[in-house]
Amino acid sequence: MQLGLVGLGRMGGNMRERIRAAGHEVVGFSNDPAVADVNSLAAMVEKLTDTPRVVWIMVPVSATEALVDEVGALLSPGDIVVDGGNSKFDGDGARAERLGKRGVGYVDVGVSGGIWGKDYGYALMVGGEKADVERVKPVFDALKPAGEFGYVHAGGHGAGHYAKMVHNGIEYGMMHAFAEGYELMRAAEIIDDVPGIIKSWREGSVVKSWLLDLLDKALDEDPNLDKIRGYADDTGEGRWTINEGVRLAVPMNVIAASVFARFVSRQEDSPAIKAIAALRKQFGGHAVKDA
Amino acid sequence: MQLGLVGLGRMGGNMRERIRAAGHEVVGFSNDPAVADVNSLAAMVEKLTDTPRVVWIMVPVSATEALVDEVGALLSPGDIVVDGGNSKFDGDGARAERLGKRGVGYVDVGVSGGIWGKDYGYALMVGGEKADVERVKPVFDALKPAGEFGYVHAGGHGAGHYAKMVHNGIEYGMMHAFAEGYELMRAAEIIDDVPGIIKSWREGSVVKSWLLDLLDKALDEDPNLDKIRGYADDTGEGRWTINEGVRLAVPMNVIAASVFARFVSRQEDSPAIKAIAALRKQFGGHAVKDA
Amino acid sequence: MQLGLVGLGRMGGNMRERIRAAGHEVVGFSNDPAVADVNSLAAMVEKLTDTPRVVWIMVPVSATEALVDEVGALLSPGDIVVDGGNSKFDGDGARAERLGKRGVGYVDVGVSGGIWGKDYGYALMVGGEKADVERVKPVFDALKPAGEFGYVHAGGHGAGHYAKMVHNGIEYGMMHAFAEGYELMRAAEIIDDVPGIIKSWREGSVVKSWLLDLLDKALDEDPNLDKIRGYADDTGEGRWTINEGVRLAVPMNVIAASVFARFVSRQEDSPAIKAIAALRKQFGGHAVKDA
Amino acid sequence: MQLGLVGLGRMGGNMRERIRAAGHEVVGFSNDPAVADVNSLAAMVEKLTDTPRVVWIMVPVSATEALVDEVGALLSPGDIVVDGGNSKFDGDGARAERLGKRGVGYVDVGVSGGIWGKDYGYALMVGGEKADVERVKPVFDALKPAGEFGYVHAGGHGAGHYAKMVHNGIEYGMMHAFAEGYELMRAAEIIDDVPGIIKSWREGSVVKSWLLDLLDKALDEDPNLDKIRGYADDTGEGRWTINEGVRLAVPMNVIAASVFARFVSRQEDSPAIKAIAALRKQFGGHAVKDA
Repeated sequence: MQLGLVGLGRMGGNMRERIRAAGHEVVGFSNDPAVADVNSLAAMVEKLTDTPRVVWIMVPVSATEALVDEVGALLSPGDIVVDGGNSKFDGDGARAERLGKRGVGYVDVGVSGGIWGKDYGYALMVGGEKADVERVKPVFDALKPAGEFGYVHAGGHGAGHYAKMVHNGIEYGMMHAFAEGYELMRAAEIIDDVPGIIKSWREGSVVKSWLLDLLDKALDEDPNLDKIRGYADDTGEGRWTINEGVRLAVPMNVIAASVFARFVSRQEDSPAIKAIAALRKQFGGHAVKDA
Repeated sequence: MQLGLVGLGRMGGNMRERIRAAGHEVVGFSNDPAVADVNSLAAMVEKLTDTPRVVWIMVPVSATEALVDEVGALLSPGDIVVDGGNSKFDGDGARAERLGKRGVGYVDVGVSGGIWGKDYGYALMVGGEKADVERVKPVFDALKPAGEFGYVHAGGHGAGHYAKMVHNGIEYGMMHAFAEGYELMRAAEIIDDVPGIIKSWREGSVVKSWLLDLLDKALDEDPNLDKIRGYADDTGEGRWTINEGVRLAVPMNVIAASVFARFVSRQEDSPAIKAIAALRKQFGGHAVKDA
Repeated sequence: MQLGLVGLGRMGGNMRERIRAAGHEVVGFSNDPAVADVNSLAAMVEKLTDTPRVVWIMVPVSATEALVDEVGALLSPGDIVVDGGNSKFDGDGARAERLGKRGVGYVDVGVSGGIWGKDYGYALMVGGEKADVERVKPVFDALKPAGEFGYVHAGGHGAGHYAKMVHNGIEYGMMHAFAEGYELMRAAEIIDDVPGIIKSWREGSVVKSWLLDLLDKALDEDPNLDKIRGYADDTGEGRWTINEGVRLAVPMNVIAASVFARFVSRQEDSPAIKAIAALRKQFGGHAVKDA
Repeated sequence: MQLGLVGLGRMGGNMRERIRAAGHEVVGFSNDPAVADVNSLAAMVEKLTDTPRVVWIMVPVSATEALVDEVGALLSPGDIVVDGGNSKFDGDGARAERLGKRGVGYVDVGVSGGIWGKDYGYALMVGGEKADVERVKPVFDALKPAGEFGYVHAGGHGAGHYAKMVHNGIEYGMMHAFAEGYELMRAAEIIDDVPGIIKSWREGSVVKSWLLDLLDKALDEDPNLDKIRGYADDTGEGRWTINEGVRLAVPMNVIAASVFARFVSRQEDSPAIKAIAALRKQFGGHAVKDA
């Protein structure tokens, strides 16, 4: 089939290759002429002759909202817009409604797999109406890993992004579980070979996982992680997961702790601990460190 | 080589089969005559003619301490006792010292893999002196999974059990990350197919892991987990991990939260929340539920 | 001065008495004719002859939004609407703007003190423009405790409700700290007299506080809290505090844990722990409890 | 009555004054001749003619154990040793037994009140046998605050130190609740006057407490806490509280989080977050900060 693809960065660029390798035609647009197949959105849509058309938007969250409408305006009834970015799930319903007024369908897709997806396939979580999802299915089949896993139609509009959000929330918690265990072993007098232990767990253990494989790989490259500072960004999904737990009264102790730890990692100094130190001085005369 | 194996339960029994399948001779002793190869520890030791002898103890923690000494007393200088149980790391040094006075070596092994180890191999984390570890190596090679992973000599006496403890601590955190994400999806109005989402993540996702595979399997058997009560025991390693974090000033928010959640799951009623409810009534006149 | 007061429930009714005791005139309206001074909002406004008029709304959050507009429509330029309820701070700006179009001022007030406020005074956190706040000052002076504390003009529109939200977030954390210590002492074999310890802390200790006084009072009435179930509601501010921490990248481990613990207290069974139990059965053959 | 007092530092020195002010005789010993009343323990004991004698030890934890035995050896059957330091509760039983063999009694006392105790009185939590406790009662009465609160006989040997440990655990949680709320208000765009809000809460609010008074005092001295670094030590009791929660299966989310936050505050860099950053780079190509 034909696919219009908007956004050819680290994710979109690799996805174009994988979809083409599966035998489909991809017309890619990007603001960077060096990688774009066409020089405008309109030119992209024009090249999609196989109707109804499907256009996949794969751009940073901040740019997605405007693009969905812009692309939608170029399409015709029966066509479909796919948002494969890390958009927040609660905007998908309104987008679907806006496009729906013009007869254009909307499908939201959570895409996992990062820089490894091109070769291994991307895990896809899809939200939208059944007929629309079916129309895009050949592209999903091209992107997903071989075999029975790696794809789900999770529910209506927003369900794909929601499932991806939860996936990332879980990822935060898993990563932090490994991180705590790693730090403990680094501190333990009794342990001689932390990287060796991590490596050993890759088969036969209960914690066997892709994240563990990657931690092993990172330690192969930098056994003490001496080159990396303990500073970690977060990309929104962890925060949204906490907010959803709060909204639905679902306890989120682990995922929240893992997100909060990243907040701490980015602070020059902690106002909270300043207050603690000030209190300790007040009631106990305990020494404080000067700022 | 020859191996004396004490304990032929769920773990020991399977291990005997796997070691034998690798071509070694195993003399197994158990209190259960139906499965034992010999009817006493002494008879077991007598059958081990290939010196120095190696005896592997694989029994519940509560029985291990006495057995180590009992077996040690039957052995000769140069022989080796292996504790493959979930013993706490901080007792290994003293055991090694006690046995060492008689010239008997001691090796502690953390064994992961559960009921799947027989077929897939067990991940082995080993503590002890190099020469002793080398002597047992053929058995380790038989038990571990094929390939380069699944085995590590982590350090001196206790390092094997320590690494296993940390492994389990991480396991607690990972399981709870999945559990929180699972509960959130169950509560989310937008999600239609929770088991389908879990299944989809098995390939291509960042949370790809053996625990995820098992969660998928559990949901195949009982899609809403209707047959299971939300009650979870803990087996010590999670608690020890927290205590080690406390001792070494290593923050343990995620692993601690996952262990505490199991504590809560076993309470009939929460004294802490009773106090909260009592306070809310006192300052705000908020209604309380009768006990 | 004169004050229109809408809402004469547990809070509003007591506040009317305290304001009157300070020598002001209060015209109170309530849907309950048994306590109302007038039988309609319009009648209330009519009785306020001392212009510009001030009307204080003290009703449940769910009813506040509509009432603010309804009251606003009855007022004239220069008049002021005060919202003393537990409204969420992020709606205050829009209300102020809506009323402002008609020349009516808006002041948001976070009110603490619960059922004790009538006698001891209410802690007031105020948001709004300086001139509007000054106009209401005599009422604030009547409501607040005697002395230098118990009142603050925290900032512009919404700052009063925001400060009250943070106050309640802190309250959640403090209560839970007491609750955990209480539960630990209940479990400790070594402790004979838990209520006696709580009582002893009321003077000379670092944890000396009003919440501690109330816990002591609750234990005087029910020494083992036998009559109360471990079930605790939450009223929104704790959740909003977490969400604000998430938005502003402020770590919230303590307050979040205290709110999450209340969520758990209200669950019949925990889907998360069901997943944990299912996983333990899968990898280790551990027994599960039937649902 | 007469009291031997060993240790005349920040705590012991003030206590001597308060006990004397109540009309008792104190013979104080310290390694610092400038403050000591006598120049040896033996000289101190010799001066205590009012039998049975009572000697109160008030020294750092690290020095207490040896001193208890040293003092005990100088005493006679019927005499009593009091440990008023922050000793861990689980050593009290053994001390009592050792002294008991010589007929000497032992009382453990948790003392709260810090540098304020001299004027306001110290909260005392006492463990030991009834007769021994009664013998020391006049000193307790001198040290405690006036009125009905500030003193409890919590149980047998160790119960005093246990109650003090829990008190400090709660204190950690309360302080951190304030600290999180403080930090959130510092970050909130809507709040103009953080110190003013803190001050306002001192009367009429639910969070009214001595710790709040002290935070207000600290902000009076340094409104933005600019002079203090966000670095906080911990003195053991918080850690022991977590360990006891772990031992007794009591969830400790709040107190644990408050202790872990102090651990983080003392780290130059976080090995855990290094691992997180390394993982993010591996799976997503996310940028890391150089160490």
